[in-house]
Amino acid sequence: MRYYTPKSELDARITRFQIGLREQDVECALITQNVDMFYFSGTIQHAHLFIPAEGKPVLFVTKSTERARSESFLDCIVDLAQPKDLRGILSEFGYGSLKTIGLEGDVLTFNLYRRYEKLFSPAKAVDISPLIRSVRMIKSPYELELIREAGKMGSEIMAFVSENLRAGMAEFQIVGMIEKLSREKGHPGFIRTRGFNQDLVPVLLLSGPGGGVPSYANGPLGGSGATTAFPYGPCNRIIGRDESVIVDYEAWVGGYMTDMTRTFCVGRLPGYMERAYHVAVEIQELLKDLGKPGIKCEELFQKAREKVRKYGLIDHFMGMHRPVSFIGHGVGLEVDELPVIAPGIATQLVEGMVIAIEPKFVFPKGAVGIENTFVVGKQGLEHLTSFDEGIQYC
Amino acid sequence: MRYYTPKSELDARITRFQIGLREQDVECALITQNVDMFYFSGTIQHAHLFIPAEGKPVLFVTKSTERARSESFLDCIVDLAQPKDLRGILSEFGYGSLKTIGLEGDVLTFNLYRRYEKLFSPAKAVDISPLIRSVRMIKSPYELELIREAGKMGSEIMAFVSENLRAGMAEFQIVGMIEKLSREKGHPGFIRTRGFNQDLVPVLLLSGPGGGVPSYANGPLGGSGATTAFPYGPCNRIIGRDESVIVDYEAWVGGYMTDMTRTFCVGRLPGYMERAYHVAVEIQELLKDLGKPGIKCEELFQKAREKVRKYGLIDHFMGMHRPVSFIGHGVGLEVDELPVIAPGIATQLVEGMVIAIEPKFVFPKGAVGIENTFVVGKQGLEHLTSFDEGIQYC
Repeated sequence: MRYYTPKSELDARITRFQIGLREQDVECALITQNVDMFYFSGTIQHAHLFIPAEGKPVLFVTKSTERARSESFLDCIVDLAQPKDLRGILSEFGYGSLKTIGLEGDVLTFNLYRRYEKLFSPAKAVDISPLIRSVRMIKSPYELELIREAGKMGSEIMAFVSENLRAGMAEFQIVGMIEKLSREKGHPGFIRTRGFNQDLVPVLLLSGPGGGVPSYANGPLGGSGATTAFPYGPCNRIIGRDESVIVDYEAWVGGYMTDMTRTFCVGRLPGYMERAYHVAVEIQELLKDLGKPGIKCEELFQKAREKVRKYGLIDHFMGMHRPVSFIGHGVGLEVDELPVIAPGIATQLVEGMVIAIEPKFVFPKGAVGIENTFVVGKQGLEHLTSFDEGIQYC
Repeated sequence: MRYYTPKSELDARITRFQIGLREQDVECALITQNVDMFYFSGTIQHAHLFIPAEGKPVLFVTKSTERARSESFLDCIVDLAQPKDLRGILSEFGYGSLKTIGLEGDVLTFNLYRRYEKLFSPAKAVDISPLIRSVRMIKSPYELELIREAGKMGSEIMAFVSENLRAGMAEFQIVGMIEKLSREKGHPGFIRTRGFNQDLVPVLLLSGPGGGVPSYANGPLGGSGATTAFPYGPCNRIIGRDESVIVDYEAWVGGYMTDMTRTFCVGRLPGYMERAYHVAVEIQELLKDLGKPGIKCEELFQKAREKVRKYGLIDHFMGMHRPVSFIGHGVGLEVDELPVIAPGIATQLVEGMVIAIEPKFVFPKGAVGIENTFVVGKQGLEHLTSFDEGIQYC
């Protein structure tokens, strides 16, 4: 399925963004990053999307204009041979003297940002990324439909692991099997993050002590990876009996992802890991009930931490040495969307937010935990991923 | 194999970089990006690598210090709980009043660059990325050894495709098989690019008209991809007989890559494609002979283009609509390293540069071409990848 973003969808997104531009007194925005481009135009090409605070957006495409026209429902798609001609062509569209221009300060490189700043000088460049991220934070019914489809893919992958995991397999062997199945289901083998330096892979499978290895990644799990040059994720370690095999998998449908984790074991997990796992499930259930519109993200984190303290597991919660200080995060076209369920985040939940909740406990001998992706509904968090929530004994 | 970068290797790299810093009158550099960090320290952690123009570098690690110490042969590795304390701790190391600080302007995001600029104010921040890229451009014998190993992996993958490609298979099916084999050989399933918005995947397999589809990617091949949200690379198209199946594959050993392309066909290619393929091989042979130390990159490109013109293939050379204007590029820890073999690039070849040469011709019904990775030697370009160079009839 190719999933063309409907025109009504693009219109609604642009309208919400334009309201924000006007509120912040920013005259226009220039969108360049692949994911933001896709969100507002329905296509990813070598292009510049110009969105004025009032009026129609214009997509200037360098390569390939033909594809942009066949994929995007925007009304105004213009061929632009060279990006340096952007300013001139904008004048022709009546945007000759701009006072402010919004740029994606959180993802554009410094050199590119400066280049656009100079190109549009004396217009003042402002970082418009917080607005983009906040518009993208609330998902539409169309987006939820794709995320639900991704959720089904996630469940199928978990079922596959449950049926095929054996002691004696190398991590890379089962990961290769999962990825092959993923690819057959249309997963590009790539996941998108917004954060700097976050080189992630879609299948994070860690067995035994591998689950306890810390890494640079901004997540509770790390893994040793296969080499010092990619020190993250699975490796060629042979999976043993009676140890945890934790699988954190991002499914993908039409660009939208779900984030999902299950804990597997061939044989029997040690008692302390089983108990920690059940605490993780208990925390998830608590947050599902509490996660109604209006509650602050920091309150959710606080409630989770109270439960962890009660069970004496605080030294293992979300990592060991320098654990991450969140228990959930927004998911959509990127896996590190807003909101973040973390201390100090006063953002209130709003219907239509999609968040992954991932209570995890890390021990030297392995990690256990659960993760599901939810949409915020009137009564609390509603599952977008569902698969048996017990420890998966294989 | 985990491949720990030897101390002598790190010392030599840092010495070359420090010479450059002094030549440019830059007092120090702060290295943060994963790949640059790996190149100069041998580890990738959440860390900041401070390299003074004279004296010892210091690696400040936030997560995980234990791993950095076990992976890096740098003498001075210091735990740093919070990146914002960086300036204070640098004072303790005698770097309290800096006048200039080099930052990676081509990869750091605008917001991060500005944050470091403020942190070190009134020191003047300068973009040090051209120096980093130029130091990394010349490979050491140690690096060449790893790249040679990657070349072997690349050849094994091409042999696998040759043996297993069948008409009737979906692209994603054979890609899934290739990736599974890759993973078993230790490939992380991830390739690193320096360029903005370049979402690439290690196995670019395109069959029939798929080879002719343009994309945002800065390369001669594009592909439709499976969805508008990832409009690049393979899809679920069923591979037919008598059509080209072009496979562009990046092997990976210890972080180092080779770039390699072969053209496959079940049945028989149309005559014009066969002829174009042989022109591609002829161009490769020409550039191998010409590619001696001292020749300028633009001259190599010019010579290739002359041959293309002679054969009347200019409208298909390196793409159709808006073809890319290069025929080769540096390869190493990133697939878009320097030098670029393109018009206007006066850089002269130097022994130890590693470049992929990729003459390719794109037609509406498919793409053909060849790509190998070479090291610049005294007598010309020497193969780091080798596999039968004919059309692979399966």
